[in-house]
Amino acid sequence: MRLSQYFLPLLRENPAEAQIVSHRLMLRAGMIRQSSAGIYSWLPLGLRVLKRVEQIVREEQDRSGAQEILMPTIQPAELWRESGRYEDYGKEMLRITDRHDREMLYGPTNEELITAIVRDAIKSYRDLPKNLYHIQWKFRDEVRPRFGVMRGREFLMKDNYSFDLDPQGAKHSYNKMFVAYLRTFARMGLKAIPMRADTGPIGGDLSHEFQILAETGESEVFCDRLWLATDILAEAEELNYDSDLEPFFRHWTSLYAATDEMHRPETCPLPPDQLVSARGIEVGHIFYFGTKYSVPMGAVVAGAGGEEVPLEMGSYGIGVSRLVGALIEANHDDAGIIWPETVAPFRLGLINLRPSDKACRNAADELYAKLRGAGVEVLYDDREESPGAKFAAMDLIGLPDQLILGPRGLAAGTIEWKRRRTGARHELPLETAVAKFAATQREAR
Amino acid sequence: MRLSQYFLPLLRENPAEAQIVSHRLMLRAGMIRQSSAGIYSWLPLGLRVLKRVEQIVREEQDRSGAQEILMPTIQPAELWRESGRYEDYGKEMLRITDRHDREMLYGPTNEELITAIVRDAIKSYRDLPKNLYHIQWKFRDEVRPRFGVMRGREFLMKDNYSFDLDPQGAKHSYNKMFVAYLRTFARMGLKAIPMRADTGPIGGDLSHEFQILAETGESEVFCDRLWLATDILAEAEELNYDSDLEPFFRHWTSLYAATDEMHRPETCPLPPDQLVSARGIEVGHIFYFGTKYSVPMGAVVAGAGGEEVPLEMGSYGIGVSRLVGALIEANHDDAGIIWPETVAPFRLGLINLRPSDKACRNAADELYAKLRGAGVEVLYDDREESPGAKFAAMDLIGLPDQLILGPRGLAAGTIEWKRRRTGARHELPLETAVAKFAATQREAR
Repeated sequence: MRLSQYFLPLLRENPAEAQIVSHRLMLRAGMIRQSSAGIYSWLPLGLRVLKRVEQIVREEQDRSGAQEILMPTIQPAELWRESGRYEDYGKEMLRITDRHDREMLYGPTNEELITAIVRDAIKSYRDLPKNLYHIQWKFRDEVRPRFGVMRGREFLMKDNYSFDLDPQGAKHSYNKMFVAYLRTFARMGLKAIPMRADTGPIGGDLSHEFQILAETGESEVFCDRLWLATDILAEAEELNYDSDLEPFFRHWTSLYAATDEMHRPETCPLPPDQLVSARGIEVGHIFYFGTKYSVPMGAVVAGAGGEEVPLEMGSYGIGVSRLVGALIEANHDDAGIIWPETVAPFRLGLINLRPSDKACRNAADELYAKLRGAGVEVLYDDREESPGAKFAAMDLIGLPDQLILGPRGLAAGTIEWKRRRTGARHELPLETAVAKFAATQREAR
Repeated sequence: MRLSQYFLPLLRENPAEAQIVSHRLMLRAGMIRQSSAGIYSWLPLGLRVLKRVEQIVREEQDRSGAQEILMPTIQPAELWRESGRYEDYGKEMLRITDRHDREMLYGPTNEELITAIVRDAIKSYRDLPKNLYHIQWKFRDEVRPRFGVMRGREFLMKDNYSFDLDPQGAKHSYNKMFVAYLRTFARMGLKAIPMRADTGPIGGDLSHEFQILAETGESEVFCDRLWLATDILAEAEELNYDSDLEPFFRHWTSLYAATDEMHRPETCPLPPDQLVSARGIEVGHIFYFGTKYSVPMGAVVAGAGGEEVPLEMGSYGIGVSRLVGALIEANHDDAGIIWPETVAPFRLGLINLRPSDKACRNAADELYAKLRGAGVEVLYDDREESPGAKFAAMDLIGLPDQLILGPRGLAAGTIEWKRRRTGARHELPLETAVAKFAATQREAR
């Protein structure tokens, strides 16, 4: 993409309304614009990241055997009366009355709707287990929306729902999501730590939230130092989802990890030098709640002996749009964002320092065409701007690598290569640049 | 995907509430389920088709140079007051009051919101032209929603908006979308005919709607017989979007085509044998409306001389979820759906006629594994059901090709290959089946 044609409204100044770094940087980098309190439009650069994150979430759901569906945003109030949650949910639920005076709502979550679908569609134990996920916009009418996409009102969430015949099956479904979540966040370069959690309005017996570590995280968390040294992705990679996942689950939940609310220094089993205190951001939450919805809503199947069995259920959520903010909280410096390769909006930035110079323009145009031909996603700064403005813009946007072409290098047949994260700079022979980046394309781990 | 594990709740009976064939078949084939009047959940099979359609729409938008963004579903009422449309829109607009008593609405379209974004972000003629699209759920509170996804209340739409400095530029943007729409529908195997249309509540001077031909279409249309003989995709393929598209536009709009409302037998210029009467379904609509929104909303840029110039705008819509229904209206027979290859949920169905037979099961499992290994999307009916039930289910679902493996063929080293559209059957040597379908994978035209 040529930057001269790209819809990328960068801001020079820090927006006054943005209190946290991800909100500031997303606004400044032209990723989002606010349309009302807590409601954002995603501009081209931001949407590319949102889609990368969404796709990793999707691939890991698919890998676990979950099947994708898509439920609507608007739900009928009756369903929530069946479960008894309609009145409980309070003012965070956006309630709507349609033209025929029917009570509707903008779904904040989907336990009721999925239970109704499965109740009508699944009649026999032979059709179990099932795990259905969707990635859809939700709405929570927060009293004070803030922190950009980290705490918006309209937000994108992956939520899924497992249906099993018995508690053992349901625990296996829970374990699968436990593994899938660790894999999902690790693929984005995030260190996510599962912590035992309260079940809140979803209800149930067993629940973990996943906290990623980021210096600017919203809350304090405490964990065993071993968490920091572990490559979860490598550990989880060998697992077969059909095998017994309970040893893996037990191992990773036995390592100490607690939110500020749950941590008690006096009872913490770790020696002080083994205990790490850090900042965390919640990005996922999983629940096992048994028959909390299936019993009141009558979601039963015929068991092997013909008897009626209420479905054993769990639900599992990842805040997809929130993750974009969380990724920035975990990956930035004073100059801007530093995208992990797996979620970067483009793999590479190409800067032409002197577009008014014909030789530079031709060489940069040619390199751009060759990179695209090799399948490399490249954002090409072909604008008539000062070198300083271009460097600042590219650092702000935070693509993993930059190629910088200027008249001096061109005369020597070289191009400068800068790694955004380390700042390391190298001279490359111009003719090797394409092969280098064609060979390091985004790999699907 | 193994059908024994797939969430595919087929219905044996025609649902009483479904009046048209696409609604009936989508319910029977387990593609959708209704959650409230005019609001549907998309089950795995249906969602796969929806995503194929969405992706073709996206690719053709990208090819035309439009850039993807994503605006929220919930919009503030103030914006619609700025344009003067808030009161005009009537009861079809779903109006919402949030917890702070602010007036909001579920967007039925996005002219106001995109104008506000561009007004804030684009200040100079040098940043033009821009064409921004999004693919997002919309809501229209129809008084009597019916016909399944063909006339739902919550529906998925691709809408985009072009911004130009002057009417000539705006006309070029309009022409680009004219071409992109013809290409989009042609890639789905649909014959789409542009017809001069009223501009309705969007407003403006110039508008075309795109009607696809289907025997069960919702309205009568009239067109020149030449339309039927033309391969629009081939004609449009040679076009460069940066070239002058006016000759192409003039050629295709000079061929007679009119909706029932616009057709006047007494003034129709065609001889009777050149005039075709057919049934049509509207799937797209494009508008050029100049400064209708930019003037009241103050969306101006600095022109080359520094003067304030209001933006010249157009908007362009494709009903993505509606298209899934329209595709079925145009592609079905008494046995069920017949998907065009480019939008089929799976490329191929594999039927094991005798899963209880070990040799059959091993051979079918092996073939399934090899097909997947070759990248062929295959739905594998491994269920314990009668052959008749399996044939009926596979015909209902409508995958382009079926491979049928049974004990007799297996003994002879062959497999039956059935084309869904023609019903033609062939015996294939078992060992050639993988290569055959690996070689005919979905091509991106």
